[in-house]
Amino acid sequence: MAAQVEATPNDAAALEAFFEKAGGWPAAQHKVDALATFAQQALEANAKVALVTSGGTTAPLERRTVRYVDNFSTGNRGAALAEHLASKGQTPAFDATGYRVVYLHRSTAAFPFTRHVHDALRADPAGTLQRLAEGPYCAKSFAALQDSKRFLAVPFDTIGEYLGLLRACCTALEPLGGNVLVVLAAAVSDFYVPDLCEHKIQSRSGGGLSLEFAPVPKCLGYVKRWGSPQFCVCGFKLETDEQLLKKKAMASLANYGLDCVVANMLATYRERATVYTASEGVVVAGDDVDARLAEELMRVHAARGVS
Amino acid sequence: MAAQVEATPNDAAALEAFFEKAGGWPAAQHKVDALATFAQQALEANAKVALVTSGGTTAPLERRTVRYVDNFSTGNRGAALAEHLASKGQTPAFDATGYRVVYLHRSTAAFPFTRHVHDALRADPAGTLQRLAEGPYCAKSFAALQDSKRFLAVPFDTIGEYLGLLRACCTALEPLGGNVLVVLAAAVSDFYVPDLCEHKIQSRSGGGLSLEFAPVPKCLGYVKRWGSPQFCVCGFKLETDEQLLKKKAMASLANYGLDCVVANMLATYRERATVYTASEGVVVAGDDVDARLAEELMRVHAARGVS
Repeated sequence: MAAQVEATPNDAAALEAFFEKAGGWPAAQHKVDALATFAQQALEANAKVALVTSGGTTAPLERRTVRYVDNFSTGNRGAALAEHLASKGQTPAFDATGYRVVYLHRSTAAFPFTRHVHDALRADPAGTLQRLAEGPYCAKSFAALQDSKRFLAVPFDTIGEYLGLLRACCTALEPLGGNVLVVLAAAVSDFYVPDLCEHKIQSRSGGGLSLEFAPVPKCLGYVKRWGSPQFCVCGFKLETDEQLLKKKAMASLANYGLDCVVANMLATYRERATVYTASEGVVVAGDDVDARLAEELMRVHAARGVS
Repeated sequence: MAAQVEATPNDAAALEAFFEKAGGWPAAQHKVDALATFAQQALEANAKVALVTSGGTTAPLERRTVRYVDNFSTGNRGAALAEHLASKGQTPAFDATGYRVVYLHRSTAAFPFTRHVHDALRADPAGTLQRLAEGPYCAKSFAALQDSKRFLAVPFDTIGEYLGLLRACCTALEPLGGNVLVVLAAAVSDFYVPDLCEHKIQSRSGGGLSLEFAPVPKCLGYVKRWGSPQFCVCGFKLETDEQLLKKKAMASLANYGLDCVVANMLATYRERATVYTASEGVVVAGDDVDARLAEELMRVHAARGVS
């Protein structure tokens, strides 16, 4: 039954064909190098590492891209989780060394710690500029951002870049094994255009446009194979039907070997989420839902390490 | 010949059909009210007004939108022109009352005056937060933003919202006649999906997706009809072929009754542009290309008023 709700095309050939069409793999060498350095330093410190993905991926319609299909995603949840994992992971309950964070994010997505300034500048440009000019504005801690050993930002735009860099992140973090928590909060394209036009599609008087999209291979099942079976991997589901939501969340756990799934209803995702593991469903809610969600993910990670 | 390069479907029925499918018109009443107040105050002050459009429009694929086709556009040029028109339009050479600015912009596009802080936060998050925390950061003038009589921001996302709000802006500014400069720097969708799915398109294992796009009616020719024939209207062209660029720019002037067209080559648009009028082509170039472009547009506007 579960398999009917969501199929598991863990098809390596389909994935290679995707990368051949969409690009993104192998990832750029300077990013691979930065990830290797980050992973080596975390390994030497025996630190926990959270890989957090955030924002929407694009599916270009042209090779020299002017137009693309986009997913609506602000990246706020991923940015908030990255903040809490980077700044609160140092509580004695978890590990004195705390979480180091790789933030794999859409280039335009919300960014941890700076998003509050961005939001304020959007909501009240003149007033915020005034306050910035007048003096101290940023009371929040941003120590995590200042140390490249503790926080690494890896930006993407297209679905190809995203999957290629996710693979590069998993490969680089493989030696850290059970110390790695993967938080897959990005909104990943389901469809892409395999055969792109070379140049900008010309608009012609009266003429329409017909586009054929192909499905993007489901990659949740690859995270532990690209990295380590010891990784603690957390997926995300967003639906409008509560019954379908639980079914899909449980199917994801089973089909992709995830450790937990954060299930969100479109209408309430800002203030409420359910974290499903194989054995339970824990509701987190309230104004500080992102902080509570981060704590819950750390708990799932810690519990997995124990078992 | 020109008409073959770019046709002029100034077809009122097609436009009404578009608004019926894509929404956006009539525009939201509170925005219409804000525009009416702004226009009335400008009229009483006998002020020049620049209507600047900026950023890309989206074409949704679903009625409850999760996915959409987007155009690549940062909105930087529109934001820079709005800045220069709002802050430099007060030079005696043009008019002691200066330009008041309506900034019709994609909700996520670059924003005048605050974009420098946004850019700095993206380029160097930790360093910028540090400098913001340490004290004075914003040396630039932002007096223009502080006075709602002088600067009105009108955000859009979809192509329907954009065209509906452009129409509302032109209607509201009609009484100002020759005092209005319209700078159409937005990157407008050429195609949209007329018949949207009600819910999120479900991804299915192995299944692709086929979408039919219809052309968006060309609206350059409506700006003066929605507003006033006395408006000074400036269009934008971006191409990769220099010969085609000039042809298309001259065709736009003729077909849509524009006063000037800013012609950009994709490879050099950040440092160089040509402003075509019926009688000449003026090249503006250099590090301060946006400031020079603003001066040139003000010159075209002033010259039109004289003739």
